Parts: sequence; structure tokens; C-alpha cells
Amino acid sequence: MIGRIAILGTGLLGTSAGLALRAAGFKGAIAGWNRSPEEAQTALKMGALDVVEADALQAARESQVVLLCVPIYATLDYMEKLSGVLGPEHLVTDVGSTKLQISQAAARLYNRPDCAAFLPGHPMAGKERGGAVLGDAALFRGAVWLFTDDPECERSPHSAALVRAWREWVVAMGSKTIDLDPARHDELVAWVSHLPQFVATALSALLEEQVGDAPELKDVGGRGLREMTRLGASPYSMWRDIAYTNTEAVQAALHALEQRLAHLRENLRTPELRDEFERANRFRRGQ
Amino acid sequence: MIGRIAILGTGLLGTSAGLALRAAGFKGAIAGWNRSPEEAQTALKMGALDVVEADALQAARESQVVLLCVPIYATLDYMEKLSGVLGPEHLVTDVGSTKLQISQAAARLYNRPDCAAFLPGHPMAGKERGGAVLGDAALFRGAVWLFTDDPECERSPHSAALVRAWREWVVAMGSKTIDLDPARHDELVAWVSHLPQFVATALSALLEEQVGDAPELKDVGGRGLREMTRLGASPYSMWRDIAYTNTEAVQAALHALEQRLAHLRENLRTPELRDEFERANRFRRGQ
Repeated sequence: MIGRIAILGTGLLGTSAGLALRAAGFKGAIAGWNRSPEEAQTALKMGALDVVEADALQAARESQVVLLCVPIYATLDYMEKLSGVLGPEHLVTDVGSTKLQISQAAARLYNRPDCAAFLPGHPMAGKERGGAVLGDAALFRGAVWLFTDDPECERSPHSAALVRAWREWVVAMGSKTIDLDPARHDELVAWVSHLPQFVATALSALLEEQVGDAPELKDVGGRGLREMTRLGASPYSMWRDIAYTNTEAVQAALHALEQRLAHLRENLRTPELRDEFERANRFRRGQ
Repeated sequence: MIGRIAILGTGLLGTSAGLALRAAGFKGAIAGWNRSPEEAQTALKMGALDVVEADALQAARESQVVLLCVPIYATLDYMEKLSGVLGPEHLVTDVGSTKLQISQAAARLYNRPDCAAFLPGHPMAGKERGGAVLGDAALFRGAVWLFTDDPECERSPHSAALVRAWREWVVAMGSKTIDLDPARHDELVAWVSHLPQFVATALSALLEEQVGDAPELKDVGGRGLREMTRLGASPYSMWRDIAYTNTEAVQAALHALEQRLAHLRENLRTPELRDEFERANRFRRGQ
């Protein structure tokens, strides 16, 4: 029932979604729009899009499904703009990393009679660097794609069917879907996604000051160091919006880790160090 | 000039060294000893050893090179025991993760006329789990192998030649060697190796408490979480000795990271967050 999808934002995630939809057998049209037209042309050349559109709203109007793949504040902006030009024949969905503000905007602007449907989504997939050129048809394979849909949505049968169809394409792209309450989502990802990112950033910045002037010594750390700092390459442009829209949960997670590190520092020569290693071992056994 | 090597301790590193020596074309005999004889038998079956010895000192006496692959305090114990039974025809070397105490013991017990030679070594290679069965001929390929030898050693020409020969085998196993002062070594690895380990341990232990009761949610974190917690599986048995023998440098590194995380937590909504991301980006560009 989806004849045309518009991907607004053709960076890493948008381009990967286009490639993954094609790889999963999507036969409809895929239109793309990007703030920088060059990035959209790259996505087109890579086969993620059939056509590049100059006008995002026009591209959305002519599609049944609109996939927003832009940073969070841009997502909120486009939700506002699109709600004025789309109707019940459309579904809008997104890939934003925090969901409370987006779900609140969805309840205000979508999911009512005579309105477009909005399904808040968040694929737990990415790379430490962005850009269409890194687009990857396999990016979502084996990943979890979170949804924070409102069970109270008043959707028409047509809207409900569009939501079901998009969920099926997400599964076809290789992801496992999990549904969460939006507040629970933001708290959970503060622990399992945002905390690891901010730790990698702080560790990388600290090491840049400590050993940045001796490049030959960076090699010394080996695989462990490379992995623990890989996310240090992540762009501020994406993480700024996450820090702004999930501030309290991220602060709580960072504060808990600071206390944990202080505890470990004070117990390097006590049996508590063994207990902490055993707790850490248990976490990894569960993975 | 090395006809026989004794590997004392045939866990991950000892077994990998035997396999790597063979892969690099070492034609002499490789004898192995391990506190648990089963572990030595595994190394033998994997082709890392020609023979398993029941007595470590006897195995050492019959070899020109003795490679100690046991935890740090066990290394210090064996340095003491071996110094009483070996002479200038022998070279002892090790793979311990801290070097100051080992280098001090080497100056006291070795590297003098009529004494065996001792070359303190530290390959920056490993896995988050130990054991002979994980032994890997390629473990040292592309890794840095640090040495903290004392330039003041009074070595006989024979001892000096054994040291040169072992260094050549290290290069033949695929490692790049770097020479450091022992105190500088311990400070450096506190930053680039021990800090990442203890951060992974603290993060894994914290997440075990936060989401350990919801195993399905551990998947949510994806590759970033897996990488940031992989070292959480590391065994206390190895890290206890590192925490004990490099306490001050590790404490300083942990304290610096705690302050960095607090600074980041207080600046989630200020331009300082951008600066911290840019410093982190610079560290990764240098890698």
C-alpha cells in the first residue's frame, strides 16, 4: 500500500534506509530531499533514491510515507511544517534518538481524525561518522528499532494500515522492533546509548590532552583503546540535540558513573575491586 | 642462537607466543609449564609447545630463553626463584602489564656479571577472556611490544646477543617495539590501557545494576554499547596485580576522568560541549 516514500535528510541514516528498503524488495518510488543538495545527489548515485526533490514539503505531499532523518530539533520543525500540508492519507515517521518531545509533538499535531499519522521511531544503528557516502544497506540488520507510539492514537483504518505497513518494512530491513513508553525510552537510551557516547567523548578528549602530542604512543593502547574511543569521532551536530532533549536523564547517568569511578578509585586495593569486576563480568555474560 | 625456549604460564599470552614463534619460523624447541597442567596440555595440543614440563625451574634451566607469562606478582616470585638457578647463559623476559617493580627486581637480581639477563617486556595485546584455548598465532601482529630495559645493564656479550635475538623474534611475530623508561611506561599505560579497562568495568557494573534484570534491553545499545563494555569481561585475577602495582597512576587517571565527566555533565547545554566533542574528534583523527 506504500507507493512512494519521501526521505527527508539523506545523511547516513536516510541513505541507509533507502538502500535497505531496496535490498528488502521495496518496489515503490523513493524520493529524497536534503538541506545540502550535494548530499542528496550522493544518495541518488548510490542507488538509495529514485529522484532528488528540491522542496521537502512537496516531496512529502506526493508520498504516502515520509521518513524524517534529520537531527531532533529539525525533526520537530518539520513535524510542525508537515502537519499543515499533510492529511490522513499520509504517515510520517522518524529516526530521532530521543522520543519524549517528538512523541508530545506527535500527540499535538498528528494521530487525530483528519490528521496525518505519526509513528515515533528510533533505530539503534549508526556509525561514528555521518554522511550519505557511508550509507549501508545492512546498517539496520540485527539492530533494534524502537517505537514509542501512543496506544491512545485515534487512527483511521487507513492510517493504522500505513503504520502496520511501515513496521513490516522495518522488520524486512532486518531490525527487531521493541515498543516502549516515550519517557521510559529516553531514560533507557540515556543508560545504554547516550552514556557510552559521552564517556567515549570525555575519555577521548582527556587522552587528546594527555598523549595527543605523542602520536606514536596512541598506538600503544591497541584494540581496547580504539574501541573505547571510537565514538569519540561522533559529531557534535547530532549530539547537541540529544544533550538538549534528554538532559536530566543523561546527567543522572553521568553522575552515577562518576560515583562509580570514584568508588573504584578508592578500592583499587580492596576486595571491592573483585566485586566490581564480577558485576561487570555478569553484564557481559548476559549479552 | 636460541635452541630452546621455556614458556612459564601457558594461558592466552603464553600459548599465543608459542604459536606466533612457530608461525614466524622458530625452529628450536618450545617447552611449556603451567600451574594447571590441563592448560599446558591444551597449549600442547594446539601446537604452541613441543613438550609440557612438570617443573618450572627445571624447564627454565634447560632453555636459553625463559618467557614468563603469568600475573605480575607471580612474575616477581619467579624472577626471585629463577635468579637462584640460572646463570649468564640464560635470558629471562616477561609480558607483565606494569614494569616499575619488575624492572627494579631485574636490576637487583639480574643483568650483572655471572647473572642471567632479564629484559622487561610488555606486548600491548590480549583479549577480554584468557585461556590457552583462545591462543592465537596472530595476537601480536600489528601490536606494540614495549620494553623497559635498563641502558646501564652490565651484560656479557653472550647476554647482549640473547637480548638482541629475542627482540628480533618479537619483530618476527609481527610486533613493533618501543623502548620506554619503566616509570614513564607505567604512567603511559595508566592512561591508554588501564584507564580504558577500569572505565569499561565501572560502566558494565553500573549497567548490570540498571538494566541487568531486562536482558532484552541490553540489545538496544547496539555496537557502541558492545564495544564500550567488551573489556567488562576481563578477569579480576589479572587486573588485581595491575591495580596493586600501578595504584597511584591509575588513581590519577580515574580522578581526571571523573572531573571530565562532571564538567561535561554541567555543560550539556553550553558551547563547552562543542569544544569537548572537537577535542575528542581530534584524538580520533590522530589515530
